[in-house]
Amino acid sequence: MLSAEIIAIGSELLTPTKTDTNSLWLTGKLNEIGIEVKLKTVVGDDKMRLEETIRDALKRSDIVISTGGLGPTEDDITRTVAARAIGRKLVYQDDLETDLRERFRKWGREMPEINKRQAFVIEGADVLPNPNGSAVGMAVETGEKFFVILPGPPRENQPMFENFILPKLRRAAGEIYVKRRMLRVGGVGESAVDEAIAPIYKLYETVETSILFNKSEIEIHLAAQSNSETEADAILEELAGKIIEKLGVAVFSRNGELMEEIVGKLLCENKKTVAVAESCTGGLIGGRLTDIPGASTYFMQGVIAYANEAKIKTLNVAPEIIEKYGAVSAEVAEAMAKGMRELANTDYAISVTGIAGPDGGSEEKPVGTVFIGYADDAQTKSFKTILPGDRYLIRWRASQTALDYLRRQILKTQTTE
Amino acid sequence: MLSAEIIAIGSELLTPTKTDTNSLWLTGKLNEIGIEVKLKTVVGDDKMRLEETIRDALKRSDIVISTGGLGPTEDDITRTVAARAIGRKLVYQDDLETDLRERFRKWGREMPEINKRQAFVIEGADVLPNPNGSAVGMAVETGEKFFVILPGPPRENQPMFENFILPKLRRAAGEIYVKRRMLRVGGVGESAVDEAIAPIYKLYETVETSILFNKSEIEIHLAAQSNSETEADAILEELAGKIIEKLGVAVFSRNGELMEEIVGKLLCENKKTVAVAESCTGGLIGGRLTDIPGASTYFMQGVIAYANEAKIKTLNVAPEIIEKYGAVSAEVAEAMAKGMRELANTDYAISVTGIAGPDGGSEEKPVGTVFIGYADDAQTKSFKTILPGDRYLIRWRASQTALDYLRRQILKTQTTE
Repeated sequence: MLSAEIIAIGSELLTPTKTDTNSLWLTGKLNEIGIEVKLKTVVGDDKMRLEETIRDALKRSDIVISTGGLGPTEDDITRTVAARAIGRKLVYQDDLETDLRERFRKWGREMPEINKRQAFVIEGADVLPNPNGSAVGMAVETGEKFFVILPGPPRENQPMFENFILPKLRRAAGEIYVKRRMLRVGGVGESAVDEAIAPIYKLYETVETSILFNKSEIEIHLAAQSNSETEADAILEELAGKIIEKLGVAVFSRNGELMEEIVGKLLCENKKTVAVAESCTGGLIGGRLTDIPGASTYFMQGVIAYANEAKIKTLNVAPEIIEKYGAVSAEVAEAMAKGMRELANTDYAISVTGIAGPDGGSEEKPVGTVFIGYADDAQTKSFKTILPGDRYLIRWRASQTALDYLRRQILKTQTTE
Repeated sequence: MLSAEIIAIGSELLTPTKTDTNSLWLTGKLNEIGIEVKLKTVVGDDKMRLEETIRDALKRSDIVISTGGLGPTEDDITRTVAARAIGRKLVYQDDLETDLRERFRKWGREMPEINKRQAFVIEGADVLPNPNGSAVGMAVETGEKFFVILPGPPRENQPMFENFILPKLRRAAGEIYVKRRMLRVGGVGESAVDEAIAPIYKLYETVETSILFNKSEIEIHLAAQSNSETEADAILEELAGKIIEKLGVAVFSRNGELMEEIVGKLLCENKKTVAVAESCTGGLIGGRLTDIPGASTYFMQGVIAYANEAKIKTLNVAPEIIEKYGAVSAEVAEAMAKGMRELANTDYAISVTGIAGPDGGSEEKPVGTVFIGYADDAQTKSFKTILPGDRYLIRWRASQTALDYLRRQILKTQTTE
């Protein structure tokens, strides 16, 4: 089995608030092809320590991957130090500078002179192109070892790693297949999920099962290992099927998709449209739904009705209802959903009104009280939930609860039709 | 200045889902007393690599702190390996075993024999008692270096570190104070910021300055060190002041606040209200503004006008304008802002219409083309920008650009009045 080390470079990663997350993603990818991560280092913009770290890593492990420190400024030292650590020169590549200048021109800017630094690469290294940023990556074979130098931002290093490094490592790692799958479960607690499915997954000894709680949902991670790809896939399929059967409609995502993707897919497949009326979530639901490419085919409109005036004027909520029941009430949630659906002329509308805190709670309606409204062509209804957490979590969980409610309604309508 | 290294021990910390967080807390504590963390390592239950890591760390840095691997089971190797790394013996301490037996008795259990391992400590080490668990910590002076061995769980290692290690280190570190501050800059690139301010910050040798790019803004991190707290504060104030003077209005945040906080604060201070009309950002701007507690005093309403119908019906955009110029155009952005302001009856309205991709781009209007509209009581205007990145980044950057535009307009209005 090949061993790997990951070096995260950047002084900001040695502060009390920032942490290296690149290594988690890289570890996941390496594990999939049967390569184990044996050590991780975080080192600052510190030439002596970085050089030593790279040297030691290449002595100990087969594969060394570094992230960060490839920017154009003085404190970006990876290029120079990495070259020195493996005893090679940096060479200037004309075509890289041309690329950089072109890139800046497209953004309507002149390339600052310091960016020229990014046109230097280690002698003999494969250059890894970066469509999402100005720093190219590098891959060098040195002795028996493989040294990969990636930029820091995930959006830059992930495609680079997947396209250029992973296929190479897969060939080197040989016939080990670790297949992963993630299910997401809504509306059930972590221990309830474990209690329900432990008797199932414990029978699968070649599958590593872990259950994690993530903001507003439970993630079930499955990792099946085999020296046959087909077998790994088949085992995973079988176990996932049994878990889904056991947990039923609560499993909203069968392959790790996000709630907004699943809702989007359901709307698309059923050729239905939706609009959202948000009070306490303030645009979060709209933002999540429209984060999915192609959302314009089913998402028509949203109204962020934060002020009562907006609920009344734009969503046609009767002022007397707000007066009588309060803005955070089942009645207002329903009126918002109904008004939204009529305004946008969609098949469905959902609405949220609640108290996200930290202020605004009362004995009767504590912080976390949220009403979700729903309207379709046949009915308007709502339900109340009390969500735990701070403002951020309450808002997130309210958005998740509303989307899950819509999902369950679409599924019901599907079955009835 | 004393340098420290942190070693997190445990194979679970080398998986794709777990991350070492002990080091963040420890770094915070060390930084406060002027000790810098120079390197962090995560190593598994791997004797060879752990021994090498400890040896190297003690060569490089004044203080080495390890967390984890002190449990009673086979894969808890820290005790043995640490002793070997510094060339000392493990000695059995009778009183520790007695303590352990007593502890188990209190829990109503017999001490399992394997727990005896936890009664062995490194020869000559100070033993750090653990009221919250069965593993004691250790502190050893070896040569000029200080080696601290802590258990993994935060509730065990944190009181241990605060009570026994911190006072010792504070004395060793002397009177050193490190004060931090972060500025955020919008609408300027990383290299342009560096080019502009390097001549300033380079004159401040006791301040560590680092410049980071973060999605849509530049962060300038300053850390001033002095043996007088007042002086550290004063130096930081002086340097930050000069940087702000140089970069001007582009510095949107003087103390690390987020764009949405700053915009909220400005609206609040000026007793103004705002509404947002979003097309391609789909609720993101509303979501960010309402993420700030108390947003209801200045944020009245949003409309997510995704479909053209919504732009026409809710925001009163003339269909002919959409027909003539397209939904992504200066004219529509302006009509959206104007319509939004009239609907919500606010002081300001901003709008966004653009192409977030991945599809929908054309030669004339490529993916990333975004128009930001603005309306107040005196004028309606707009501007065009082309934002780089994928769908996620384009949407985020569009929201940031719109909020920054609003911020600059509020500042202008302030000055004019």
